[in-house]
Amino acid sequence: MAHISEGSQNRFEELRNDIEQSLEEMIASRINSGEVVELAGRMLLAGGKRLRPIMMFLAYELAGGKNPDDLMPLAKAFEFLHTATLVHDDIYDEATHRRGVPTIHTEHGLAKAIIVGDWLFVQGYALGGRYNQEIVTIIGNYCSDIAVSEISQIEHINNLKTTPEDYLSIVRGKTAGPFSGGCHSAAIIAGASDEQKLALANFGMEIGIAYQLVDDLLDLKGDESIGKPRGSDVYEGKMTLPLIHSLTIHHGKNRERLAEIISNFNYDLFDELIQLLEKSDSFSYTEILIQNHFDRAMKYLDIFGDSEIKQHLLALSEYITKRKL
Amino acid sequence: MAHISEGSQNRFEELRNDIEQSLEEMIASRINSGEVVELAGRMLLAGGKRLRPIMMFLAYELAGGKNPDDLMPLAKAFEFLHTATLVHDDIYDEATHRRGVPTIHTEHGLAKAIIVGDWLFVQGYALGGRYNQEIVTIIGNYCSDIAVSEISQIEHINNLKTTPEDYLSIVRGKTAGPFSGGCHSAAIIAGASDEQKLALANFGMEIGIAYQLVDDLLDLKGDESIGKPRGSDVYEGKMTLPLIHSLTIHHGKNRERLAEIISNFNYDLFDELIQLLEKSDSFSYTEILIQNHFDRAMKYLDIFGDSEIKQHLLALSEYITKRKL
Repeated sequence: MAHISEGSQNRFEELRNDIEQSLEEMIASRINSGEVVELAGRMLLAGGKRLRPIMMFLAYELAGGKNPDDLMPLAKAFEFLHTATLVHDDIYDEATHRRGVPTIHTEHGLAKAIIVGDWLFVQGYALGGRYNQEIVTIIGNYCSDIAVSEISQIEHINNLKTTPEDYLSIVRGKTAGPFSGGCHSAAIIAGASDEQKLALANFGMEIGIAYQLVDDLLDLKGDESIGKPRGSDVYEGKMTLPLIHSLTIHHGKNRERLAEIISNFNYDLFDELIQLLEKSDSFSYTEILIQNHFDRAMKYLDIFGDSEIKQHLLALSEYITKRKL
Repeated sequence: MAHISEGSQNRFEELRNDIEQSLEEMIASRINSGEVVELAGRMLLAGGKRLRPIMMFLAYELAGGKNPDDLMPLAKAFEFLHTATLVHDDIYDEATHRRGVPTIHTEHGLAKAIIVGDWLFVQGYALGGRYNQEIVTIIGNYCSDIAVSEISQIEHINNLKTTPEDYLSIVRGKTAGPFSGGCHSAAIIAGASDEQKLALANFGMEIGIAYQLVDDLLDLKGDESIGKPRGSDVYEGKMTLPLIHSLTIHHGKNRERLAEIISNFNYDLFDELIQLLEKSDSFSYTEILIQNHFDRAMKYLDIFGDSEIKQHLLALSEYITKRKL
């Protein structure tokens, strides 16, 4: 994060602490309900980066919001819903760790993991349900879209014919929708104009797409010290953008070999896969796409005059789209 | 249902048709979202009895509600949430069929079953989120309680020391809460007085407990033609009320044998189990409890003057507590 100003870093840290504290208080106030809250709390409070809620607070202020307390329940709602989807994803992705702690299904079995995820969903919806119809609809829509996209992603597992359009549609639903919905609803609570609401919704969508593209790159080129082994996506048959691009570019024998590697991936094939992806310039292409989405996101912010808070939002966007690359 | 008047039967059928049609329309309007809606719709529309929503409409009218259309989204919310819990329950109960159709995880795998359940939850919450804070809180609370109780039930699997209090606490959360929350929120929408709201919430809770006790009995004495093999609960290690009662009554060798049968149940032991339960009068005891909860439920309705709608609600309660016995 060296290129992020100290002022922005401090602001993020401040917001993150506020969010953390509020989440902790909520779990503490429910801990008497027993094991479900204990397990849910452990996952919720295991040190997530809180990117969505931090972004929401910045968007709220940028849109003229003056009472961040009004936003806190909604910011928490997004974090609960996000954690709920992680708990459920980890079950069918058979992930053993999340946020540095063992996943719930690994330690406590399938039933409890499903129920803990459901409980986290309930808390999220109950927090979101405090707001008006416009916001409830946004939450309902983006959560529906997550489910629709997750199913679509499963349908595209190991499908070498997955197009960039299929990919983008899945990413919009699964990853970018929550960023967009978060910024959009924060703008509503701030009392923003329709133009501002739309700009922030679009901003969130673009940053969210960039976020997923970075994730795709990290899976192939990332630092393994962060815990996730490289190539996990390929191993799970997920058609990430670098793969889709490379399959489009290569022809003849290389295309055949690439298809073979993706279809029957194991970690011994990793270096060969990387070579083929390099040959088709698929990493550079993905980086260009990330930059494009980042630039488009920034453009949506043009309607807001320059300000310290806009600088913070820009810094957060840079952090999100340039993490660990 | 011979003892239910034709007038009541017609009213139930009418309400059931309205609910069914409204659910069908909702699924149809979303079917373009793909497989998740298709799978969710198939389960949602597989012919549930719609007991909760029917009860909600009757409670609404009893509390003076005049515009049943105001209630429909909430009644649907309860049915979506109910179906969501069934889809997730069936995964960890390893159920192969539900409402006469194969369960989603059996036909389409774990991932899709989890996601379809999540999608059903979202729809339920989004429908419920249209209402005011009082109702959102009721929904949030009863759904949290379901999760808390499901975990507690898992903790008590094969636990021969489960007390009637443990049992009741689980049943209140898992089964009776949705009935209570349904009647309670229907009363709120009807503009009922605090006294009426409380009476209907309590009424729903008592009927819900009776409902579960009937379920417990059906598992041991029910008609197998309805699809579920007898003894499933025992097989899954669920501590139902007849078992808990019998374990309390028996002493010495009979207690030992009963504990052995429950702990290592297989279907060859079924007849012996029934004999032991007969010996401790545990079926009669459970029937008395059902009657007690039914009577208490009726007493809560005393504050409402006699009317046709009250007769319908009474008839529905009779149907719920006397089905298939």
